[in-house]
Amino acid sequence: MTRFSFTVHATDGRARTGAIAMQRGTIRTPAFMPVGTAGTVKAMKVEDVAATGADIILGNTYHLMLRPGAERMARLGGLHRFMGWDKPILTDSGGYQVMSLSELRKITEEGVTFASHIDGSRHMLSPERSMEIQRLLGSDIVMAFDECPRADAPRDVMAKSMAMSMRWAKRSRDAFDAGGSHAEGAALFGIQQGGLDEQLRGESAGLLRDIGFDGYAIGGLAVGEGQEAMFATLDFAPGQLPEDRPRYLMGVGKPDDIVGAVERGVDMFDCVLPTRSGRNGQGFTWDGPLNLRNAKHTEDVGPLDPDCSCPVCAKYSRAYLHHLFKAGEMLGPMLLTEHNLSFYQQLMAGMRGAIAEGRFAAWASAFRARYLAKR
Amino acid sequence: MTRFSFTVHATDGRARTGAIAMQRGTIRTPAFMPVGTAGTVKAMKVEDVAATGADIILGNTYHLMLRPGAERMARLGGLHRFMGWDKPILTDSGGYQVMSLSELRKITEEGVTFASHIDGSRHMLSPERSMEIQRLLGSDIVMAFDECPRADAPRDVMAKSMAMSMRWAKRSRDAFDAGGSHAEGAALFGIQQGGLDEQLRGESAGLLRDIGFDGYAIGGLAVGEGQEAMFATLDFAPGQLPEDRPRYLMGVGKPDDIVGAVERGVDMFDCVLPTRSGRNGQGFTWDGPLNLRNAKHTEDVGPLDPDCSCPVCAKYSRAYLHHLFKAGEMLGPMLLTEHNLSFYQQLMAGMRGAIAEGRFAAWASAFRARYLAKR
Repeated sequence: MTRFSFTVHATDGRARTGAIAMQRGTIRTPAFMPVGTAGTVKAMKVEDVAATGADIILGNTYHLMLRPGAERMARLGGLHRFMGWDKPILTDSGGYQVMSLSELRKITEEGVTFASHIDGSRHMLSPERSMEIQRLLGSDIVMAFDECPRADAPRDVMAKSMAMSMRWAKRSRDAFDAGGSHAEGAALFGIQQGGLDEQLRGESAGLLRDIGFDGYAIGGLAVGEGQEAMFATLDFAPGQLPEDRPRYLMGVGKPDDIVGAVERGVDMFDCVLPTRSGRNGQGFTWDGPLNLRNAKHTEDVGPLDPDCSCPVCAKYSRAYLHHLFKAGEMLGPMLLTEHNLSFYQQLMAGMRGAIAEGRFAAWASAFRARYLAKR
Repeated sequence: MTRFSFTVHATDGRARTGAIAMQRGTIRTPAFMPVGTAGTVKAMKVEDVAATGADIILGNTYHLMLRPGAERMARLGGLHRFMGWDKPILTDSGGYQVMSLSELRKITEEGVTFASHIDGSRHMLSPERSMEIQRLLGSDIVMAFDECPRADAPRDVMAKSMAMSMRWAKRSRDAFDAGGSHAEGAALFGIQQGGLDEQLRGESAGLLRDIGFDGYAIGGLAVGEGQEAMFATLDFAPGQLPEDRPRYLMGVGKPDDIVGAVERGVDMFDCVLPTRSGRNGQGFTWDGPLNLRNAKHTEDVGPLDPDCSCPVCAKYSRAYLHHLFKAGEMLGPMLLTEHNLSFYQQLMAGMRGAIAEGRFAAWASAFRARYLAKR
């Protein structure tokens, strides 16, 4: 059995399409990973997540360590068995969410101590504890523990933070490798930091390459810097990372963000947008996002998106989805989440096909002309 | 195509098993009808409702006339198309819910005027308007419009109310029959009233038989009188209704209520209990109901019910369901509703099989010994 192998099947400009082979399954790239924060992709049955075309989902270390708890999850047989998903799972390191969600944080060279946002209980995360938790969860792709500074932090703060994250990356590597049988089946990704600064990003990439990882994430973007600044960074960041390893842009993004990032050489994505928007009544279409709560849909017998191949668009009208959200029915979030996740997977499949056939520039241009037309 | 035919395949004591054949499908009896109040069985995809074994669902005239509105529903192609359910739908008349949910009610011989609980708008329901709304919804089994008095109303109030309901039943029959092509495909049920009083129930049954209906409901029970009084009434009420027509006990009930009612000759049931309880964390098992929020389930790797054949029990642990409810995840209500509806259908299938094989008394006795053991 292959532990982890990445094969690029075709390139088109800087865009690539390929596949990651792992013991629990193959991940087609460019890949979108639905977010299953607390052991469930919100409002979705797990077999319906698979049916949208997802090859891998993401679990959040921060949430799962607090509830149900990492040691408890191990006693219950691990995250896959717990939630009934047998394909690969990527877990984040907890680093990002401990910064954004927890209270009373204290960051030292050792790691982070913090209070749970659920019950105020005290917890600690360090590279070693993060690796241990991800092992206890049974993660397939483990993320190195890092610090994610604010996008607008001064350069010296950004540089210091990046340097510490790189020391933590080495400690993550060592702790992961000491993880016994889990390390024989799972993969470890490092995370590039350095904000919007090409030189810091380059230093970070070099340090990560020296340590050596199965894949490389681009961290510290999609934190409020805007699409233009993100794309400017992606003009150089992916190229600083190894050609023969998957590149994962964490927490991105809107459909047009993803297309622009694939054009710049990114292979993997995760984002809460399709699920969160779906719960709030926003549906993605090839003509841009739509708010299903809008009264103009009240008597619209057409599907949410006539060019969508998902079961929701095959079966239901915009009028029905509008009614469900107006009436506060749970089925509204359920159906719109399913559509949105399917839309994202159709987006990824469209890009994979276009790259494989060497027509990605035209595909992306046509996508943008239509998707952004109503802006 | 058969508009409506009821065949009793076997009887065992007063219990019967059979089938109702209609244009949109066959309803196996005794039947449990999941409640789809506002055009959705709450927290369930409609194909999953079918997969639990439901042959028919119930829609609420009161809710649907207010939102999305009956005329609008007709313009949108009717309730079946709107919600994607192609098997039979029974709609109630709105009579019960206008009493329990609306405000500023005024009841006259003509009908009921009331204010919507959603936005305070004024509306009217009468036998004629109820028939029209149920026709606009595209209902397969239409219920006569009736008044449902309080269970503890004095006998003279109960008698007057019953008499008016019987006049309304005749007006419902006439209005239904004038409904053109809809009446050629749909069925109309009358509703027996008379509270707990054998004589009033007998008079009501006689008046309904004189009018003539496809099926007969027993109304005005399960409104707080308790199981003992309900069973005492069911000792005589079903026998007052025609032998060759289905008998429908409205709004019932707990599993042990249903078993006791089938023993007394009832063929059809509806209740929000499996869906509402499911959203609240209560799961039904052959050993009685369980609260999944209870901390004792935290590390229980066993299924909700080891003797349940539903997909939820096949795949998930009590620990996982407990986690979902603790974390406030929508998947908790989704999975528990699916299990509960499946459990109810397994209950009905168990009774149908036992009646067909002439062992219903033993089946019911074994059911009660186990289901009620922990009381």
